[in-house]
Amino acid sequence: MRFLHTADWHIGRRLHGFDLTSEQKNAFEQIEKIAIDEKVDGIIIAGDLYDRSMPAEDSVALLNQMIEKLNLADKFPIYAISGNHDSATRLSTGSKWFKQTNFYLHTRLDQAFKPIELPDTQLFLLPYFELFDAQQYFNDETIKHLDQAFKPIAEKMKTQFNPQKKHILVAHFFADGSTQTASETQLTVGGLAAVPVALLQDFDYVALGHLHGKDALHADNARYSGSPVKFSLSEANQQKGVFIVDTDPVKLTFKPIKPLWDVQKLTETFATLTDKDFYQQLNLDNYYGITLQDTKPIPNVLAQLRNIYPHIISLDRENGYETAIDYRGESGKQIRQKDPMALLADFYQQIAKEDLTEQQKKWATEALKAANDGGKKS
Amino acid sequence: MRFLHTADWHIGRRLHGFDLTSEQKNAFEQIEKIAIDEKVDGIIIAGDLYDRSMPAEDSVALLNQMIEKLNLADKFPIYAISGNHDSATRLSTGSKWFKQTNFYLHTRLDQAFKPIELPDTQLFLLPYFELFDAQQYFNDETIKHLDQAFKPIAEKMKTQFNPQKKHILVAHFFADGSTQTASETQLTVGGLAAVPVALLQDFDYVALGHLHGKDALHADNARYSGSPVKFSLSEANQQKGVFIVDTDPVKLTFKPIKPLWDVQKLTETFATLTDKDFYQQLNLDNYYGITLQDTKPIPNVLAQLRNIYPHIISLDRENGYETAIDYRGESGKQIRQKDPMALLADFYQQIAKEDLTEQQKKWATEALKAANDGGKKS
Repeated sequence: MRFLHTADWHIGRRLHGFDLTSEQKNAFEQIEKIAIDEKVDGIIIAGDLYDRSMPAEDSVALLNQMIEKLNLADKFPIYAISGNHDSATRLSTGSKWFKQTNFYLHTRLDQAFKPIELPDTQLFLLPYFELFDAQQYFNDETIKHLDQAFKPIAEKMKTQFNPQKKHILVAHFFADGSTQTASETQLTVGGLAAVPVALLQDFDYVALGHLHGKDALHADNARYSGSPVKFSLSEANQQKGVFIVDTDPVKLTFKPIKPLWDVQKLTETFATLTDKDFYQQLNLDNYYGITLQDTKPIPNVLAQLRNIYPHIISLDRENGYETAIDYRGESGKQIRQKDPMALLADFYQQIAKEDLTEQQKKWATEALKAANDGGKKS
Repeated sequence: MRFLHTADWHIGRRLHGFDLTSEQKNAFEQIEKIAIDEKVDGIIIAGDLYDRSMPAEDSVALLNQMIEKLNLADKFPIYAISGNHDSATRLSTGSKWFKQTNFYLHTRLDQAFKPIELPDTQLFLLPYFELFDAQQYFNDETIKHLDQAFKPIAEKMKTQFNPQKKHILVAHFFADGSTQTASETQLTVGGLAAVPVALLQDFDYVALGHLHGKDALHADNARYSGSPVKFSLSEANQQKGVFIVDTDPVKLTFKPIKPLWDVQKLTETFATLTDKDFYQQLNLDNYYGITLQDTKPIPNVLAQLRNIYPHIISLDRENGYETAIDYRGESGKQIRQKDPMALLADFYQQIAKEDLTEQQKKWATEALKAANDGGKKS
């Protein structure tokens, strides 16, 4: 059989304040096309369908549309689990009805042990769970770490193994030896840590969710599909996509997803960044994390760059500032005793190499007065 | 055919801070039993399934259980609409799958015009809608009031009428001439007001939701089922229950629901309320709104009564206080100029007929100091 393995859609996610809806819709359409072109027998979604346990109405409407399209319109079976970002309870709404159209959505640990029986494969859908759930389910309070929790889970699944079939596990956790990026929530809730890859050995394939990069783990039989969309600058160099999983024999093929607007890093001087010949070659609608190589202060630098790059998601300096602020040997105490206006004037002069204008002084004086008054009131 | 008409479950609702979950579960079990005993062909739920557009996880779990029991376990068809308390978008999740088991859930105006075709009845499910939705649907911005909005809705429905069948409308709005209690949200959003009963005349029965009392409206062919549970003291004297609706001939039978803990008013003297012979005859777990007939001040009156009546939801005086506070002819200005401690001492003396104790003075002084300091800080 042939499955499409995806995960971590995080519907509702924003990128440094920018709405990713069109980015996510675009990625979804590519996933749908891949599923159709590859004639897959089902679509695996390994958790974190939503970005938040209480998704906004727009996010609910969007995910509902996507799932209805894949399952009701395109007639693809769906094998999904809840992730740590989903509310298992909210996500489970309707799941008892979904089975009628081969949309299997598991949100509780106890659902993981009855495999979905397919012609040549047994699918075990293990949702994200807290250590507490495992302690309760196995009635064993000595379970203190994820490996202790997962061992009996795997053992119990194996009692269901049909030797004539392949065995696929769909799960959402941190597998030991994986590399994490900035955009994933650390799973340390209730001591929840990592699952040793050795514990996964009896499955023919483990379709993982949680980490956003397809290369986070390179086990023979276990992979993260990664998210379909880049969710942070730390994912700038990741190739997003989905895995096509063939079962007989087990074979993995990665299918890339092209971003609508890419997330990219730019490390250049201000002069280069503002040079038409340079930026005309770029897709200026992309999301840029900019690192300036300059060391001189540049007035209104962000505003100036935003005129050219409307989607700047970060701005920093590669080599800091040429002139650190010179306190002329004054102690912190001496400085704190100085008149705020004098301090501001010094600071501005050192950074901008100019004196404050009369207008600027007026604004500063008003601001200081307001701050002081505010302190007295309410 | 025979239907059960209920509405306004408001799952998640609290009564003056008290959790109503067990009350709502108890009412649900009675509704289920009535449906089974009366062998109804379907259950109509006329909106406000939830109390809030963003229900808590517990509420989601509870409503899901109830609906699964009625539709999947008991195999009752369900005909439901969203009310003004529901989020149409959130509630609609899964509705495309629900139809497969005859659970019809309409949350959008455009869904109202295709009737559910039953052997002898056409069911029109009209969810709660904003004036804006009607303006959009009919592309007519001159629609400024609910009657203007409902007229074309009824007209369009009538084009679908099959003269061989009965016509039932399920709706959630304020019908003109109905009497409202304190516990219902006023529907004035976007000028949304009342639907004249005359506009309902062409339907054999209109199963209404929104008002919580079964007697809110006494039209020949239109009724509110009312909520299954009392949601405020203003509903203390209402008999809660559901309607059994027979279609051939159209006949209404009210089936009462017995409260687990009732909401009741007590208008008595403090002496009577604290008299064992009196309160031993009462179910002290009930929710009581107490009106004292006393006119004298009673120290710690609420605390004393709560020792006997743990679920007090309101406390007031029938005849006010014997002695209004005596300002000895002082003007507001004079009083404001007095030292707060002196004012407090006077007030306490007049109400409690005692002087402040040293401990009380100490507390008051500290409280005043804290208030003054707070003012200076932050």
